Amino acid sequence: MNLLIINGPNLNLVGRREPGIYGDQSIDTYLNKLYRKYNSVSFSYFQSNHEGEIIDKLHEVGFSDLDGIILNAGAYTHTSLAIADAIAAINVPVVEVHISNVHSREEIRHHSMISPFCRGVIAGFGLDSYRLAVESFLK
Amino acid sequence: MNLLIINGPNLNLVGRREPGIYGDQSIDTYLNKLYRKYNSVSFSYFQSNHEGEIIDKLHEVGFSDLDGIILNAGAYTHTSLAIADAIAAINVPVVEVHISNVHSREEIRHHSMISPFCRGVIAGFGLDSYRLAVESFLK
Amino acid sequence: MNLLIINGPNLNLVGRREPGIYGDQSIDTYLNKLYRKYNSVSFSYFQSNHEGEIIDKLHEVGFSDLDGIILNAGAYTHTSLAIADAIAAINVPVVEVHISNVHSREEIRHHSMISPFCRGVIAGFGLDSYRLAVESFLK
Amino acid sequence: MNLLIINGPNLNLVGRREPGIYGDQSIDTYLNKLYRKYNSVSFSYFQSNHEGEIIDKLHEVGFSDLDGIILNAGAYTHTSLAIADAIAAINVPVVEVHISNVHSREEIRHHSMISPFCRGVIAGFGLDSYRLAVESFLK
Amino acid sequence: MNLLIINGPNLNLVGRREPGIYGDQSIDTYLNKLYRKYNSVSFSYFQSNHEGEIIDKLHEVGFSDLDGIILNAGAYTHTSLAIADAIAAINVPVVEVHISNVHSREEIRHHSMISPFCRGVIAGFGLDSYRLAVESFLK
Amino acid sequence: MNLLIINGPNLNLVGRREPGIYGDQSIDTYLNKLYRKYNSVSFSYFQSNHEGEIIDKLHEVGFSDLDGIILNAGAYTHTSLAIADAIAAINVPVVEVHISNVHSREEIRHHSMISPFCRGVIAGFGLDSYRLAVESFLK
Amino acid sequence: MNLLIINGPNLNLVGRREPGIYGDQSIDTYLNKLYRKYNSVSFSYFQSNHEGEIIDKLHEVGFSDLDGIILNAGAYTHTSLAIADAIAAINVPVVEVHISNVHSREEIRHHSMISPFCRGVIAGFGLDSYRLAVESFLK
Amino acid sequence: MNLLIINGPNLNLVGRREPGIYGDQSIDTYLNKLYRKYNSVSFSYFQSNHEGEIIDKLHEVGFSDLDGIILNAGAYTHTSLAIADAIAAINVPVVEVHISNVHSREEIRHHSMISPFCRGVIAGFGLDSYRLAVESFLK
Amino acid sequence: MNLLIINGPNLNLVGRREPGIYGDQSIDTYLNKLYRKYNSVSFSYFQSNHEGEIIDKLHEVGFSDLDGIILNAGAYTHTSLAIADAIAAINVPVVEVHISNVHSREEIRHHSMISPFCRGVIAGFGLDSYRLAVESFLK
Amino acid sequence: MNLLIINGPNLNLVGRREPGIYGDQSIDTYLNKLYRKYNSVSFSYFQSNHEGEIIDKLHEVGFSDLDGIILNAGAYTHTSLAIADAIAAINVPVVEVHISNVHSREEIRHHSMISPFCRGVIAGFGLDSYRLAVESFLK
Amino acid sequence: MNLLIINGPNLNLVGRREPGIYGDQSIDTYLNKLYRKYNSVSFSYFQSNHEGEIIDKLHEVGFSDLDGIILNAGAYTHTSLAIADAIAAINVPVVEVHISNVHSREEIRHHSMISPFCRGVIAGFGLDSYRLAVESFLK
Amino acid sequence: MNLLIINGPNLNLVGRREPGIYGDQSIDTYLNKLYRKYNSVSFSYFQSNHEGEIIDKLHEVGFSDLDGIILNAGAYTHTSLAIADAIAAINVPVVEVHISNVHSREEIRHHSMISPFCRGVIAGFGLDSYRLAVESFLK
Repeated sequence: MNLLIINGPNLNLVGRREPGIYGDQSIDTYLNKLYRKYNSVSFSYFQSNHEGEIIDKLHEVGFSDLDGIILNAGAYTHTSLAIADAIAAINVPVVEVHISNVHSREEIRHHSMISPFCRGVIAGFGLDSYRLAVESFLK
Repeated sequence: MNLLIINGPNLNLVGRREPGIYGDQSIDTYLNKLYRKYNSVSFSYFQSNHEGEIIDKLHEVGFSDLDGIILNAGAYTHTSLAIADAIAAINVPVVEVHISNVHSREEIRHHSMISPFCRGVIAGFGLDSYRLAVESFLK
Repeated sequence: MNLLIINGPNLNLVGRREPGIYGDQSIDTYLNKLYRKYNSVSFSYFQSNHEGEIIDKLHEVGFSDLDGIILNAGAYTHTSLAIADAIAAINVPVVEVHISNVHSREEIRHHSMISPFCRGVIAGFGLDSYRLAVESFLK
Repeated sequence: MNLLIINGPNLNLVGRREPGIYGDQSIDTYLNKLYRKYNSVSFSYFQSNHEGEIIDKLHEVGFSDLDGIILNAGAYTHTSLAIADAIAAINVPVVEVHISNVHSREEIRHHSMISPFCRGVIAGFGLDSYRLAVESFLK
Repeated sequence: MNLLIINGPNLNLVGRREPGIYGDQSIDTYLNKLYRKYNSVSFSYFQSNHEGEIIDKLHEVGFSDLDGIILNAGAYTHTSLAIADAIAAINVPVVEVHISNVHSREEIRHHSMISPFCRGVIAGFGLDSYRLAVESFLK
Repeated sequence: MNLLIINGPNLNLVGRREPGIYGDQSIDTYLNKLYRKYNSVSFSYFQSNHEGEIIDKLHEVGFSDLDGIILNAGAYTHTSLAIADAIAAINVPVVEVHISNVHSREEIRHHSMISPFCRGVIAGFGLDSYRLAVESFLK
Repeated sequence: MNLLIINGPNLNLVGRREPGIYGDQSIDTYLNKLYRKYNSVSFSYFQSNHEGEIIDKLHEVGFSDLDGIILNAGAYTHTSLAIADAIAAINVPVVEVHISNVHSREEIRHHSMISPFCRGVIAGFGLDSYRLAVESFLK
Repeated sequence: MNLLIINGPNLNLVGRREPGIYGDQSIDTYLNKLYRKYNSVSFSYFQSNHEGEIIDKLHEVGFSDLDGIILNAGAYTHTSLAIADAIAAINVPVVEVHISNVHSREEIRHHSMISPFCRGVIAGFGLDSYRLAVESFLK
Repeated sequence: MNLLIINGPNLNLVGRREPGIYGDQSIDTYLNKLYRKYNSVSFSYFQSNHEGEIIDKLHEVGFSDLDGIILNAGAYTHTSLAIADAIAAINVPVVEVHISNVHSREEIRHHSMISPFCRGVIAGFGLDSYRLAVESFLK
Repeated sequence: MNLLIINGPNLNLVGRREPGIYGDQSIDTYLNKLYRKYNSVSFSYFQSNHEGEIIDKLHEVGFSDLDGIILNAGAYTHTSLAIADAIAAINVPVVEVHISNVHSREEIRHHSMISPFCRGVIAGFGLDSYRLAVESFLK
Repeated sequence: MNLLIINGPNLNLVGRREPGIYGDQSIDTYLNKLYRKYNSVSFSYFQSNHEGEIIDKLHEVGFSDLDGIILNAGAYTHTSLAIADAIAAINVPVVEVHISNVHSREEIRHHSMISPFCRGVIAGFGLDSYRLAVESFLK
Repeated sequence: MNLLIINGPNLNLVGRREPGIYGDQSIDTYLNKLYRKYNSVSFSYFQSNHEGEIIDKLHEVGFSDLDGIILNAGAYTHTSLAIADAIAAINVPVVEVHISNVHSREEIRHHSMISPFCRGVIAGFGLDSYRLAVESFLK
């Protein structure tokens, strides 16, 4: 099984950024643990603060034999119709994840532009949201 | 580990009700498989179509040594401030699940009254959403 | 022909409650006249002030050989997505009725959550709305 | 008993227009059956695609000894305050009918400008909505 | 001085229609008194329930040597962008009048589509609103 | 006949303030002409930039034998529920006037808080709006 | 004097639930003090988490010789049109109380569906709100 | 105990103004009865129709040893953020009162700008609302 | 190829009406040039200020062998659900055109009721919009 | 250079009022430092809690040789169209300042009625906002 | 004549992406046909999924001797104020095109941020929309 | 003192773009003057039309010993939650500046997504806004 994890804007700062919301573990440390735990899965990883680069990446892999994409689009979740269109355009299924419980934060974070085009949504479990997304593909 | 699964209104009909949205497997069949898979977990189950009974149940177990509640509040997700208040009032953590991707359905289903008070939200994975919720407590 | 009439909250008080809106004939008196008029129809009747009991009743009869349900959901018409879901889930057709002309009352009564899932809607004819609903099944 | 049926814009095309919504029986065929069924009622009929002509007709008959008007105002139901004013101005009672269940269609069709001034509303029973309106006057 | 008074839908019924709102004097009786009072003014009068006929009339006179138009567009005041466009298109100034105080009635009557294109607005003085509009041209 | 003209905030600057909107004639010059024209009327005049002083004045004269008040509440028209309450509380009828056509200006000026409690509204005729208001009391 | 106190959903948990909002005194302890203070009043008490049971109770006592009802409908205050209808339907006057200042909490708690049908509203005084409601009946 | 009662705009007219809403007892008559009833309390009283004077008064007494302020801000309740800020700025607690049930009146009166900063709110008990506010300080 | 051009309200005034928006060439002059340019196309033309006449015309030709309709519905574009219904009802494809760039004008002109039922939309090219619509059928 | 600083409601309390938002330095202490720092500027100062007095002051100085006005309108920033009109009416340029970052406070403080008529806006720098406003005139 | 065609996000996938909406012809195939048809025009082409690159390109060519830009901004049409600003900033005229009829899709696609700054808009003709845009420059 | 000035989309065109709004001085000319005036400050400068590059830059410098960032995010001010998140994530304080008075332009420019996370906001002083921002750090 091949899975790609895509992180959007500011998620490179996790561990460093607002620890009250995002925790103090760096994303790299977490992902390494995750990869070890699911060692039968082949993971790839992509992070970008650029909306366009996330779309380019979705196009690049979206018609391949990848089994799934785990996407935390960060703030673009709430503003990017273009990423939503890219998800709708490709063949590989996408699972949307959020570290924080977006529903208990500001109102603009209660609405996701990309959810309607994703297979499912997992939010609020801290970094463990990524593991649950992996689990969803292992069903 | 002790977990309680609470299903709200109309979820007793899963397998029978709108199979295009909810699939054709009955909730009992599914849960039996789930219990067997996670046989180290002690599960209990409660279903009701009554908002008040769901609140009563949350009160009854909410200050016990239960490790977690997996709640699919069905339509009450979108209309019940009283269930939201009950979740906020109790000590046991609650994970919100949905079988369907509520974000790709009617607009009223895009907003959850209970999410801000839950630990996290899992939606859109069919009945597998319940398994992912179990996983979230096993972290 | 078998028809079930379901009355929701506060409709047990008809005849006694706000006669300027609901008239001064009790619901029982009216229904007895109705049963006599349509004596080839086998009627049953259910009233509850509990949203959950209305859903339970819809489930109980919704997969039977009942020919139709005449539902006056009272105030739940405007607030209960759970009853709407129950109507969508069952096989027996439901006709929505209202005694008063809901469109000439407060704004919250102008929108019905259940109408989209009902076969049709009859409103404003006083208690005669029930007879018209019976007629709709006799077509 | 004298009843006038008024049909608004595009209803002359029933039977021909979007049969998935309006059925494939022409309005004339239907009305002839209706007239035969209620042969003790004296019916008249008026159809126009012009908002102004519907108002003129309501004025023309609105102070006569007509017993009632059955009005399907089509799309003007949702946009014509002028027809609503005409209904409020006249003495003859008006019953609003719709062939389709307007509440399960686009949002603009969920709100009727004329309902507050009509005696009652009947919607969603196909052409049988007209018969139920006749029944409402025979009470 | 040449003035044209245009009355829109249902205003032919004034004196007959909802006397609590519009009074019980017929529009003809009133206008005759008005003409006698301002006998140096040459009046013409046009009433129609048809939006299109009001536009046609505005076009017909709108580039003539008429000194002004007194327009009570009735319900079209609130719904007709087409009449608003006609007022904007012509050269003769238009004064908007209303018999009732539209601001103390239903919310839809609080907004006028035509006001921005009229010279001024006079509302709420009963039939005397027309006289005040005449006065506005005599300044 | 006794009439009081009340001008609200910034109207003391008319003639000096934004002449494109309010003209270049001072309010005093205009009123003197008006008083001469209607010399059988006894006029009084009050101007204040203070919401509270306008309310005090309405109370002071509102139960007297004054025949009417001509009120241009300026910006308070759109923000002062307290002035609206004062108008509703007193016995002397109030006519609302505006120099400019408020409906062709910013959206906040399209809604008047005081109109529902005034006898009528006159707007857009420049300073001549005051004369038309005088005329409305001479009917 | 006979008074009935009705508490809605989650109010059984007062003293235990979110003490920052509701205080740490249990509702029973408080009510016993209240009963002793007003020993000339005959009190009865009812608590339920079920919307339907609250309606049933209102019907049961609403046409009796009870002098008043003190109702804290909890979250149903903001969502239950059915309880509002029950209050409107009965003869016994109802006073609405809230322990917390609902206006300084989330926006959904700023609007009450039941207030228009209650005699008055008392909110924000902690448990003392109940005493003030008792006082209101002793006037 | 020292209490100050502040009445806002138009409340000087109580007894004289719209008796259907405010009753026909003058505020002075009422307050004299109230002072006699609570003769151990030292009352002071202030009424103004000026938003600024109410703020000045709140500042003047807000850092003194006054025990509480009973404020009926009248229409400023719904429009004055400046009074709300003054309440938030001072140390003396404020209780908000209303004579009428503001929730059964026009929509603009359903929202209070000052409630979030007051200790509590009492509305709808007629002039008795002031007594209940006094009681709230005697707790 | 047979094409019908339909112009709605006020478009008869083009060349004469607000030249800053619509240019100063009359619609007749323009159309004659257009007909000469596309002399292999058989054009017909219809203009009306009446919503009902536009609907009548759409019905009259909508089931014929006409190849297409070019419709500039003027202000009815934004207010007529009835014309939208007529377009949906007929078989001949309709292309919507506008002379001005409706998106840079008032907000009400940003939304078209008829666009969803048209094949395509062309706006903002002045009278050349009609030529582009002709081109769209020549594809 | 002559500059006038105008402070609106509750700003006399700075240093004393909600120090978490406004700091604990009194406005007088601050201004004295400011005056010393910019000793080539001739400052005047005006504070009022009365909307009308602020308007009066703007009128008084607005046509003089004053070089600029620094206005912190406090809560009136968000509610006073009358002050906005006064700014638009006068000749002296006005710079709007706020001590706190209004955009991170309640939603009503995110919108300023006066900004469109001011030369510029400075917000969020604590009392230093006044110095920056002085700097803006020294450019 | 020199024309530049700019395609925004996901438009590189046309022919491959949701063929029900966008058809199954690739954009390259289409453009080659278009270039051959209009062989007197010198075309250039640019596609990017990056909002910033589209702005960079508009700046690069926007002050050159290019005769026009044909822009299909894809999803950025509905979310990018920055692209709108770039169009407003440059000298070369821009025509907005869409392959699908955006008005018959989700509501967010009904509003274009860029239309007010474009010369005109062409939507719904499939890939033929580009040809019509070319035609618009050949006028 | 080290300050970084970041300019967002289209601000490279200042001096060239819409001079009525942005003036005709180029940003380079202006900044050179600014640097000379504040020669004890070490300035760096970054401009990009790419949302992602602005975020990358904020991350790059946001945990350094930079004393402050002066950010004119251009149109991204109103649409970029991702830049807002980046500002919230970093340690270096950010001051938001605008050349034009955004509050007197289109409504979408009245709301800033980034203001709540900035130290302060300076808008409307033309290019001098940047100098005032520098001053704010020199306090």
